[in-house]
Amino acid sequence: MELWFKEIDEANVSYSYKVKDVLYKAQSSFQKIDVIDTEAYGRMLLIDGLVMITEKDEFVYHEMIAHVPALLHVEPKKVLVIGGGDGGTVRELLKHECIQEITLCEIDGMVIDAAKRFFPAVASGLDNPRVEVVVSDGIEFVSNGKSDFFDLVIVDSTDPVGPGEGLFTEVFYRSVARVLAPGGFIVCQSESPWYSVELLGRINKNVMGGFAFVRNYVGSIPTYPRGLWSWTLGSQAPVDISSFDRERLLVMEPHLSYLNCEVFSAAFALPSFYLRKLQALS
Amino acid sequence: MELWFKEIDEANVSYSYKVKDVLYKAQSSFQKIDVIDTEAYGRMLLIDGLVMITEKDEFVYHEMIAHVPALLHVEPKKVLVIGGGDGGTVRELLKHECIQEITLCEIDGMVIDAAKRFFPAVASGLDNPRVEVVVSDGIEFVSNGKSDFFDLVIVDSTDPVGPGEGLFTEVFYRSVARVLAPGGFIVCQSESPWYSVELLGRINKNVMGGFAFVRNYVGSIPTYPRGLWSWTLGSQAPVDISSFDRERLLVMEPHLSYLNCEVFSAAFALPSFYLRKLQALS
Repeated sequence: MELWFKEIDEANVSYSYKVKDVLYKAQSSFQKIDVIDTEAYGRMLLIDGLVMITEKDEFVYHEMIAHVPALLHVEPKKVLVIGGGDGGTVRELLKHECIQEITLCEIDGMVIDAAKRFFPAVASGLDNPRVEVVVSDGIEFVSNGKSDFFDLVIVDSTDPVGPGEGLFTEVFYRSVARVLAPGGFIVCQSESPWYSVELLGRINKNVMGGFAFVRNYVGSIPTYPRGLWSWTLGSQAPVDISSFDRERLLVMEPHLSYLNCEVFSAAFALPSFYLRKLQALS
Repeated sequence: MELWFKEIDEANVSYSYKVKDVLYKAQSSFQKIDVIDTEAYGRMLLIDGLVMITEKDEFVYHEMIAHVPALLHVEPKKVLVIGGGDGGTVRELLKHECIQEITLCEIDGMVIDAAKRFFPAVASGLDNPRVEVVVSDGIEFVSNGKSDFFDLVIVDSTDPVGPGEGLFTEVFYRSVARVLAPGGFIVCQSESPWYSVELLGRINKNVMGGFAFVRNYVGSIPTYPRGLWSWTLGSQAPVDISSFDRERLLVMEPHLSYLNCEVFSAAFALPSFYLRKLQALS
């Protein structure tokens, strides 16, 4: 018997992977969680039938969402990660010695458990003494959080449907702006530039509701639909992309598989079709 | 009845597209040629069951293979395109006023016919007076060509299997080097950086057999497997990427959908995993 896992996007494009084994199937209070082992990408974590991470290419997403804001900040010390229960973002943040405290606020404890069991290399940092794991709703956590506290807030969420939806609203971004210390950054995953203007708009416009300056950057993730992914960076002051901490990145480069000094700047060079979509929103 | 077209790669990853209509099915002396109309990407040209171009994203491939070498050359006048029977590369080259003569050498006349009939916006330049279309074997054509003649040779081929295979050999690249005038460039499509080192090696190593300097660059193409594609640029002199003709690009920018001045430089910033694969070859 041949087993294939298939993900179909809203435009009737499907991506399928030959499955070697189904390792885990569960239903939490929030979502379906599956772990499969595939020929091409090794183990895959699926949430509600969508690929969240795979062993072979998770490094791109995690390096890009963690290091870009961390390297633009002069010296981040306190970081909040919303979502990100697989631990990949935390693992990357721990590579910055200046970061003293990472709070991971994941709504679904079963995601954390599945990651620790099936993706130990991804979840490796979750038991680090610099990390506090809170199983709670990210919106409430931020809403009850101290003002001017975090240097970075990283919204490592699922897509803007289901449990992740509230993490893409203007109200939430305003709440994040309040808990960020001066000079702080928010970053969130913002879907594929190849998607419709409407979907991109839901994210960019809402971030702009809480932050004065917004920049988008991109990276290549083969197991995310359309292969090109974007992140959105918000701040209250304008950002000079070229001012990232090159020395800190050079120290880390041997331990990274995607990001390097050249790729850092290149990630902010947006294709014309994407720039035009972003312009259409403003 | 629902129709889906499915392409499966060598690692058992498949990409499927819901089909609205099958417009053309043919078998030439060289290969199977199909044209389908898909929900997500409009019309698709398939050769031997693999996606060659789609209406919605063909601009990336054609802009990147044509403009990058053309803008690095001080003033290209004579250009040879091997393959590229759909006409997209020619359409882009015609945007450079300095280019006086484009020779398109396509082995399969039926590809040209199918493109003119089903992709008129792509094939639009093939009847331009600056373009000569030769239906012939590219390897023979180059082998019989005048020395020091072309400013650019663009190898716009299918994958290194079937009719395209000979276009990826060291012998062929040496032959191209002979017909290039001083200061000339070869560029060829070189598959996805996410592929195995072995496949990437077949291309890069062989280009190095004919050229002293080789550079790779990348772009996002959602309908090519893994979503990130690469091109390989060869020259006899070292290339300063930042020396591209910015003024010529600025004039063209409103007519391009992918490439702009920022993306030009960014395309040469290679992710660390890809750099390490390239290093493993040398």
